[in-house]
Amino acid sequence: MDNRPIGFLDSGVGGLTVARELMRQLPHEEIVYIGDSARAPYGPRPAEQIKEYTWQLVRFLLTKDVKMIVFACNTATAVAWEEVKEALDIPVLGVILPGASAAIKASQTGKIGVLGTAMTIQSDIYRTKIQALSPEMQVESLACPKFAPLVESNNYQSSLAKKVVYETLRPLVGKVDTLVLGCTHYPLLRPIIQNAMGQDVKLIDSGAECARDISVLLNYFEINRSRSLEKTQHRYYTTASPLAFREIAENWLGMAIEVEHVSL
Amino acid sequence: MDNRPIGFLDSGVGGLTVARELMRQLPHEEIVYIGDSARAPYGPRPAEQIKEYTWQLVRFLLTKDVKMIVFACNTATAVAWEEVKEALDIPVLGVILPGASAAIKASQTGKIGVLGTAMTIQSDIYRTKIQALSPEMQVESLACPKFAPLVESNNYQSSLAKKVVYETLRPLVGKVDTLVLGCTHYPLLRPIIQNAMGQDVKLIDSGAECARDISVLLNYFEINRSRSLEKTQHRYYTTASPLAFREIAENWLGMAIEVEHVSL
Repeated sequence: MDNRPIGFLDSGVGGLTVARELMRQLPHEEIVYIGDSARAPYGPRPAEQIKEYTWQLVRFLLTKDVKMIVFACNTATAVAWEEVKEALDIPVLGVILPGASAAIKASQTGKIGVLGTAMTIQSDIYRTKIQALSPEMQVESLACPKFAPLVESNNYQSSLAKKVVYETLRPLVGKVDTLVLGCTHYPLLRPIIQNAMGQDVKLIDSGAECARDISVLLNYFEINRSRSLEKTQHRYYTTASPLAFREIAENWLGMAIEVEHVSL
Repeated sequence: MDNRPIGFLDSGVGGLTVARELMRQLPHEEIVYIGDSARAPYGPRPAEQIKEYTWQLVRFLLTKDVKMIVFACNTATAVAWEEVKEALDIPVLGVILPGASAAIKASQTGKIGVLGTAMTIQSDIYRTKIQALSPEMQVESLACPKFAPLVESNNYQSSLAKKVVYETLRPLVGKVDTLVLGCTHYPLLRPIIQNAMGQDVKLIDSGAECARDISVLLNYFEINRSRSLEKTQHRYYTTASPLAFREIAENWLGMAIEVEHVSL
């Protein structure tokens, strides 16, 4: 039993898709969320810089006395997860392995598409992890550098979003039966992505898969929060404007929240 | 990636219910199974003795170079899991927390029944774990000392089994909406237990829940077996008669297997 909160980090608001799924599955767990929106997206940045920023987010969460850290960001997971996991003595969970594993289970044809930021696709981590588990899988990777900014700017339901998604995904249409949303921002674009790809394509939300794994790890490490503590007081921090963060977050989470600005 | 097998231990054949579920979920993983049928059931034995026997099983599995150990036995989990988990540097998974957690999620009325061996019920571990997570849950525990021997003697489909199950469960009928099968032998009696309790009662198979968790931990610790290794060569060991073990095991697993006798 451990009543401390779970820490979530992301380059911006995308990790809220993981947080929302965790709240749905484990409503008694408490969350501390930090989004580095001032420096989002991480995708086009050099690996060393992403690593440095990620460590800043990790150190911030540690000051909040978290019992576990969730890398609710594919780019940060691709670049820094293994290093941080080795260095800390609390569990550190990334979104990539749960997503890769779910994609293998879902695919019937063995043809899997992966969407991600420039860095995630360049790191080729999904292909590496998927083919390590299951070498006969064919992986088509596609960088979608315009997707995360659409979400960060709260334009993810706009006609511009539809146009960008349709154009970007064209090379993949008809080529895969399973598509990994390899960036936690992308579930906000899910309806458009599903329409662009066709209804038969299975979309894998790495963040939702990750939320399921959190529950198992809380059990394994015996660090669940007691359900007798009825009230949860989630806390949200952003390195950019709290107002902009709150607008997207409240719309996505369907509840009123308070957001604090923080300088790292 | 780690192509070594997963070790399973049980007082006898009951843990095969967990192994079967793992084979279904992760058919490319390899299993080494040890059942201590010569000294089954563990339930009525003193805690110190169960701990000693469990350590013998653990040490045997370590000689087979396993990458993870699954306590596919509630009694051993209740008595020795925490100690063994602390002592080893490979992951050690028990069946009780996955079962307790699933029961909380399944129950609508908050009235949960728990069946187990004398030792599991005496340890009160399910009530402790369930109420730690969710204090308002009411737990009705019932020791079923006659159940595991019915399975070990391959009489689990007999009319005797039906009589024993109906008589034993009578005090619980109508009192709970969820019932934990808190001994890995009990899923073999599942159809009879379900009839005795009524079709509306949700039966929680701790072993099946545990198998789901194994998959997550293999990901977290990055020790999956490659799916390119097509053939699995599961190995089964028993401290009693290989013939008797094989008869039950082949019937339950639905495949031909080889069983080796081992002295601990």
